[in-house]
Amino acid sequence: MKLSDRLRQDSETIWKKIYNHPFVVELFDGTLPERKFRFYILQDYNYLISSIKNFSLLASRAPDEKSLIEVAEMAYMEATGEFEGYRSFLEKMGLSVEEAQGQEMMQTGLSYVSFLLSTSSLKTFQEGMAAVLPCYWSYQEIAAYHGDKIRGMESEIYREWASYYLEDEYIELVDRIRALVDRTGTGFPYEKLREVFINASRYELNFWDAVYREGIT
Amino acid sequence: MKLSDRLRQDSETIWKKIYNHPFVVELFDGTLPERKFRFYILQDYNYLISSIKNFSLLASRAPDEKSLIEVAEMAYMEATGEFEGYRSFLEKMGLSVEEAQGQEMMQTGLSYVSFLLSTSSLKTFQEGMAAVLPCYWSYQEIAAYHGDKIRGMESEIYREWASYYLEDEYIELVDRIRALVDRTGTGFPYEKLREVFINASRYELNFWDAVYREGIT
Amino acid sequence: MKLSDRLRQDSETIWKKIYNHPFVVELFDGTLPERKFRFYILQDYNYLISSIKNFSLLASRAPDEKSLIEVAEMAYMEATGEFEGYRSFLEKMGLSVEEAQGQEMMQTGLSYVSFLLSTSSLKTFQEGMAAVLPCYWSYQEIAAYHGDKIRGMESEIYREWASYYLEDEYIELVDRIRALVDRTGTGFPYEKLREVFINASRYELNFWDAVYREGIT
Amino acid sequence: MKLSDRLRQDSETIWKKIYNHPFVVELFDGTLPERKFRFYILQDYNYLISSIKNFSLLASRAPDEKSLIEVAEMAYMEATGEFEGYRSFLEKMGLSVEEAQGQEMMQTGLSYVSFLLSTSSLKTFQEGMAAVLPCYWSYQEIAAYHGDKIRGMESEIYREWASYYLEDEYIELVDRIRALVDRTGTGFPYEKLREVFINASRYELNFWDAVYREGIT
Repeated sequence: MKLSDRLRQDSETIWKKIYNHPFVVELFDGTLPERKFRFYILQDYNYLISSIKNFSLLASRAPDEKSLIEVAEMAYMEATGEFEGYRSFLEKMGLSVEEAQGQEMMQTGLSYVSFLLSTSSLKTFQEGMAAVLPCYWSYQEIAAYHGDKIRGMESEIYREWASYYLEDEYIELVDRIRALVDRTGTGFPYEKLREVFINASRYELNFWDAVYREGIT
Repeated sequence: MKLSDRLRQDSETIWKKIYNHPFVVELFDGTLPERKFRFYILQDYNYLISSIKNFSLLASRAPDEKSLIEVAEMAYMEATGEFEGYRSFLEKMGLSVEEAQGQEMMQTGLSYVSFLLSTSSLKTFQEGMAAVLPCYWSYQEIAAYHGDKIRGMESEIYREWASYYLEDEYIELVDRIRALVDRTGTGFPYEKLREVFINASRYELNFWDAVYREGIT
Repeated sequence: MKLSDRLRQDSETIWKKIYNHPFVVELFDGTLPERKFRFYILQDYNYLISSIKNFSLLASRAPDEKSLIEVAEMAYMEATGEFEGYRSFLEKMGLSVEEAQGQEMMQTGLSYVSFLLSTSSLKTFQEGMAAVLPCYWSYQEIAAYHGDKIRGMESEIYREWASYYLEDEYIELVDRIRALVDRTGTGFPYEKLREVFINASRYELNFWDAVYREGIT
Repeated sequence: MKLSDRLRQDSETIWKKIYNHPFVVELFDGTLPERKFRFYILQDYNYLISSIKNFSLLASRAPDEKSLIEVAEMAYMEATGEFEGYRSFLEKMGLSVEEAQGQEMMQTGLSYVSFLLSTSSLKTFQEGMAAVLPCYWSYQEIAAYHGDKIRGMESEIYREWASYYLEDEYIELVDRIRALVDRTGTGFPYEKLREVFINASRYELNFWDAVYREGIT
């Protein structure tokens, strides 16, 4: 079994909760209040910015040239394509980047990005990459799990959001991150990778929870 | 006067030595032994790789989103365009990336990249950017200073190398780095920026010195 | 008003909740179930270890020699005096450092230390120091707020724990951290310091919450 | 053979040059111009300060609690005992810490500390520790190698300087650093440790060279 598949398997309980989280289920059923979705989108800004920083940090600690070049490219893709996509998506919803920037960050989001950035700063490249994977991968699996509902989704906004994670370009990004984890992490103490992968998966679940509650604790 | 112009002015003595360094002068006069040039090109590999890491580090510490995106793009440009250009240039000289990787790094080069990476790791973003500027900028100025000789250069390899630093794409990169130093460094304690800029300029000069001596101390 | 007093004032709402948190109130009233206290003590291990790392990180980024020496000493005090005190306290409770190490870290604790470590790694020294202050300072204030109950506390363990935060040695440590924040942070953009100080105060509150629930979410 | 002994053996050629360097030989023979010694002592300030930062950085990346506590203690010893010793030594020579701080750092010294700090920032703890060892260890070996001359040294200053590196306290520090390299580095790819150990040894040699020339290049 590939390393990434083993990590995925060991997080099954958490991932199931992610697929079946009310935010996710209601979004694909079309019953999610738009207010909650807007809250989510605005909170996502902080994650996107931190993600560019985090891939940059990981690049600076890459163990070999191939990984260095690949992760620097991921940082760039986040900073350009992803960011532009995010901006145009905001606009379709009548929102702006400035509104997203001005949003107070909920603590659950701060905790998640702090976890990613401190792992990349102080632990190994391998652990940093394993921490990054659950976010990207679980979005693809969410979209695949609920995939048969997408075509019939009434809300254009929800449908566009959901479709993105099944596009070739996105799947290729997930595949590249997985391959990087598999290539650099094989031979690395598994327990350490498992710990960060599970923690990152929990932060994903917490994030859905917190945006569903619109940050109210 | 712009901040970058002031930094440049305060390093005039060192930069003059760079323009008039035997390696540079002989290269444009066509009298530089190809053996020295090959040594230089092979040693440059380490600088290029460290440069990708260094821009990545700086991105992770960028003080605002605009700088973050810009510096992540610079890291990417180094990792892709610059790297591919370097690879194809090596090939034209009958060399390979593997040979460059296998080359023992001369200590002068190690010192230079250590200076850049420790500045970006432990000092401010502003100081890190000021440390990066002399390399990119001085190459442009070297090519401009000796520009009228380029057309007549006999060696295709030397001519191609020299022309690159006068191309629009390269000049635009230098302009962007300068603009970033000007924008983020204005208001920052000047003495600190001056210190790193001058030290980086000295490392540039040392680098030319060391490759001219082919690493022999 | 001193910078630290202003930060403290702006966090008043959160700090009041800390003083009056059931965990704290019941501890000083002697009604806190020992099971909850043991859970807290075991979870505290991770904070202590991260605190040594965090002060070390801050030392490496200190803006001047005086701060460097002072923060390196704080790291050492955590690594020796605090750590030995913690070990002997564990022993009095029939626990060992190994048990604390073997404890699964609750996510609230992981979030708190990730926040501290990523702030020290990627933001300024001033922000890193402002993030550290609420923990140390609020413990002193908790003990002072409930101080008149200490003498009459039945549980020797609870009494010993509470008394420690009113000892001269501890108060001096808090005073030194405050003085360092005041000295290096004055003139620094206040909003940034306020943001990390308030976030750290929230993490303190979350921590009490989570240990009161014994990590059950 | 212990890992540290193997590293030491592989650097034999460089270490021999260190023992027999004119600066070292003339110092023990009592013929070293005091001007050169003063230059050396003033330049050493930067190394001492960077050493506190460097041990702090290494502490923040320590792979286990034992190493963390030990390295935090080394940072503290540098910041207190070593620093106080240095200050009182300066005073005996009619110099002050302020003069040392005001000294322009020679580039050889900047390169050495940049190498140490960038290794600790971006490479592994094991490589960072291997980079630290040559400085401490070679001073002990220099003093031992020329040990029979110490008693007869006329200059009280030179004698005091030389004696320090044979005192129990200093030897114990070297032993602890070696033991830490041996304990954490065994099993780690040897070639990587060898590379940093040899580079650090070269920087030691360069440092003696540069202070002998009083920074004139």
